[in-house]
Amino acid sequence: MSFDPETLRFTPEGLIPVIAQDTDSGAVLMMAWMTAEAVRRTLETGRVTYWSRSRQDFWIKGETSGHVQDLVELRLDCDRDAILALVRQTGPACHTNRKSCFYSAIQDGAEVEIMAPEPG
Amino acid sequence: MSFDPETLRFTPEGLIPVIAQDTDSGAVLMMAWMTAEAVRRTLETGRVTYWSRSRQDFWIKGETSGHVQDLVELRLDCDRDAILALVRQTGPACHTNRKSCFYSAIQDGAEVEIMAPEPG
Repeated sequence: MSFDPETLRFTPEGLIPVIAQDTDSGAVLMMAWMTAEAVRRTLETGRVTYWSRSRQDFWIKGETSGHVQDLVELRLDCDRDAILALVRQTGPACHTNRKSCFYSAIQDGAEVEIMAPEPG
Repeated sequence: MSFDPETLRFTPEGLIPVIAQDTDSGAVLMMAWMTAEAVRRTLETGRVTYWSRSRQDFWIKGETSGHVQDLVELRLDCDRDAILALVRQTGPACHTNRKSCFYSAIQDGAEVEIMAPEPG
């Protein structure tokens, strides 16, 4: 079955949540959003391209930082309203220079930082 | 720092996206939503509890199917607008009886099913 991004289920703003997972380590790196056109560009270029809600523009991950995400595979969930992007991540995924954006854990009712920024 | 679910960033509907990851296999199982109260109940009970947008009610994962998610750890992202739930999953996570809801992959422009329902 040929894939058409328009068949996904988007929010009223035309967005779909995307989970980026490092295909080598299995680490969940970040969650961001795509439009249908961002899905299309990601598949065409092999560079993961989100939609920046703050800038209201396409956001080729790593375009300025160099911390790009090379697409390995896009997967869809059963409801077609979420995407899992398996990626090869260059450098840290998080703008705080951490490997993953999910660096805070709730442990015994307290918020704990479990991942330090990478050096450099 | 003591954790208060109200300090998370919710959508206008009061929801936050939650990624469930199997802590043993590393597989991303599903994406669903929580309210602040669902976050609180999940932490208090150790049973992952979502908010069902279709039923507009709390949804203790596996309450009817027995396919529960026992919480290992909740993590927050840098923007405080997404949650990663590390879980121990009993049985398949997906209502289609597949291990994960992300069982469709885009390969060479086509949509391919990469995971079969579990027997039984």
